[in-house]
Amino acid sequence: MEVQSVLHMNSGVGDISYAENSTFQQKMIASFAKTARQEAAVDSFRAAICPTKMTIADLGCSVGPNVLQMASEIIEAIAQASHQLNRRPPEMQVFLNDLPGNDFNTLFSLLPEFYELRETKLQETDQEQVPCFISGVPGSFYVRLFVSKSLHFVYSSNSLHWLSQVPQMQLQDGSEAPLNNKGNVVEGGHMVLTFMARRSSDPLAPMDFDGWELLAKALRDMVSLGLTEEEKVDSFNLPWYAPSMEEVKDEITIQGSFAIKKIELFDINWDDNSQEAPRNDHNYNPVAKSTLTMAKASRAVLESMLKSHFGEAIIEKLFERYCFLLEEYYSKYKAEVTNILIVFERK
Amino acid sequence: MEVQSVLHMNSGVGDISYAENSTFQQKMIASFAKTARQEAAVDSFRAAICPTKMTIADLGCSVGPNVLQMASEIIEAIAQASHQLNRRPPEMQVFLNDLPGNDFNTLFSLLPEFYELRETKLQETDQEQVPCFISGVPGSFYVRLFVSKSLHFVYSSNSLHWLSQVPQMQLQDGSEAPLNNKGNVVEGGHMVLTFMARRSSDPLAPMDFDGWELLAKALRDMVSLGLTEEEKVDSFNLPWYAPSMEEVKDEITIQGSFAIKKIELFDINWDDNSQEAPRNDHNYNPVAKSTLTMAKASRAVLESMLKSHFGEAIIEKLFERYCFLLEEYYSKYKAEVTNILIVFERK
Repeated sequence: MEVQSVLHMNSGVGDISYAENSTFQQKMIASFAKTARQEAAVDSFRAAICPTKMTIADLGCSVGPNVLQMASEIIEAIAQASHQLNRRPPEMQVFLNDLPGNDFNTLFSLLPEFYELRETKLQETDQEQVPCFISGVPGSFYVRLFVSKSLHFVYSSNSLHWLSQVPQMQLQDGSEAPLNNKGNVVEGGHMVLTFMARRSSDPLAPMDFDGWELLAKALRDMVSLGLTEEEKVDSFNLPWYAPSMEEVKDEITIQGSFAIKKIELFDINWDDNSQEAPRNDHNYNPVAKSTLTMAKASRAVLESMLKSHFGEAIIEKLFERYCFLLEEYYSKYKAEVTNILIVFERK
Repeated sequence: MEVQSVLHMNSGVGDISYAENSTFQQKMIASFAKTARQEAAVDSFRAAICPTKMTIADLGCSVGPNVLQMASEIIEAIAQASHQLNRRPPEMQVFLNDLPGNDFNTLFSLLPEFYELRETKLQETDQEQVPCFISGVPGSFYVRLFVSKSLHFVYSSNSLHWLSQVPQMQLQDGSEAPLNNKGNVVEGGHMVLTFMARRSSDPLAPMDFDGWELLAKALRDMVSLGLTEEEKVDSFNLPWYAPSMEEVKDEITIQGSFAIKKIELFDINWDDNSQEAPRNDHNYNPVAKSTLTMAKASRAVLESMLKSHFGEAIIEKLFERYCFLLEEYYSKYKAEVTNILIVFERK
């Protein structure tokens, strides 16, 4: 599988698009990772001695309102910090990176509204305007993407568990270092990464909630139904890896350019139980709601890869079955997923 | 008409896409404007005393192979110049700008091949690699797009005759200054603009080849056929203006930040007569060929605006009629279009 050409979230803004189905990713952003990002961005600003221009980059931004919300929160934090320090807020250059197959058109279509909202808000709060310039950077974050020493702050949310290539073995025992762009972060610059991880140091240990296992089961059921071949399922490997904290620490030490300021694991519910039942809806079924949310979110992320490997014909049936398995699961268990948050400073 | 949302070249790479129908624009690029761009880029490089990083921007880049070709030619010229000066070539940051409605997805899909080709070429010539980082900047070039003092070289080909809004009057007697991004060009930086212009100082004088007049005639024919209303045609104004050299000079003087190094008018055939008849094709009809090329090129550029104003139903019939009128025209005349080339230096 050519990861660069088939790994992309579903495009557009329709019912099965990633833009409309990224609740989980939204949660991760709204979680305490937001504070970590804001603090690290402000630290970068101070470390550069309140520069007049600042460049920040989102690696693996994907598409949807989450992307601009994160950028906005960071810009706001820096504006506040500069206000407190009695400095002029810096002009902000924001680079949004993802693979060339990402739906940048949809992402860019959100910009006019984003700029307008910012303007309205500024007028309301009587705050000084922070000029902010957004651009899209198509390319893999496993190769160099930026001019050297040009970035003050880098962040990546929910992307680095995707690998640059499909593992050659069934199981990969080392994670890929997401640090190829290190040369571009200026001294004192910060980087905040959040992505999926595992609590156990044993790569074979089952995860608390293994969505992949349910997907594998659904795929095997497709074989039973004669809709695909066993060899096809066996040869389908996702370019995905959730490392343990130790593996991450080791990679950072080997790479050597960054000091770890904070590293911790945290859990997020991979369902939608947070949503309350709509008033007067006596038929509201939280399990069915969670199932649908999760099935759509998985589809938005995986469809491009599944189509490329199994063909388009299998997709509807596969996700129908996946829905059934998810519902079975949700009726018994909570779906918690482990993530890792790391805050680095460039040495 | 909300220009930002309806002015964009046809997307994709299909039969009526802009990417496949930009022969004319290609010609302009291959013309002597190429040399002007390369020289000015090298002058910017020298003026910045051979910087280790250079930032260049294409305003109104649109989509298709032309875009990357222009960037490539500029990078090559700078690489050669640095080689001659015995300097290391600078790392290049390339900003490709167009309105958010531009098909950036298709443009970005050309990047992997572009990067690959560059690499192969460099290996062949044994030249030192010039790291080059491309990013897309969605937004109107009539507002600020870049961080201040960040650009060494700016170019725009075949875009600045598009205005930021539809003229309120039937005839606009002043051109819009395409210089809102002036604050971002560093001292000694250069800018090369090419766009359509008129030879006469009288805005009412007919142009040598007025494609718009033929389009207006086709639209009036749609009224006769009962396919649209006269008022609709009367209220359709294109956000387009071809200024005279004097108007351009005046605007530059009023704006004040740039010195003109070169300004001249030049003509380009807006047809495809350059193409020779295929061997053994006794039925080859150059007029029919030119007509088709021109009709498709116009459609790739205008369709989004025509659809938004007249609705989709009229499009096929309109271009059929336009083809007929073009063929009539081409059987009698040559289709030459006047353009202006300006090379500026930031004072």
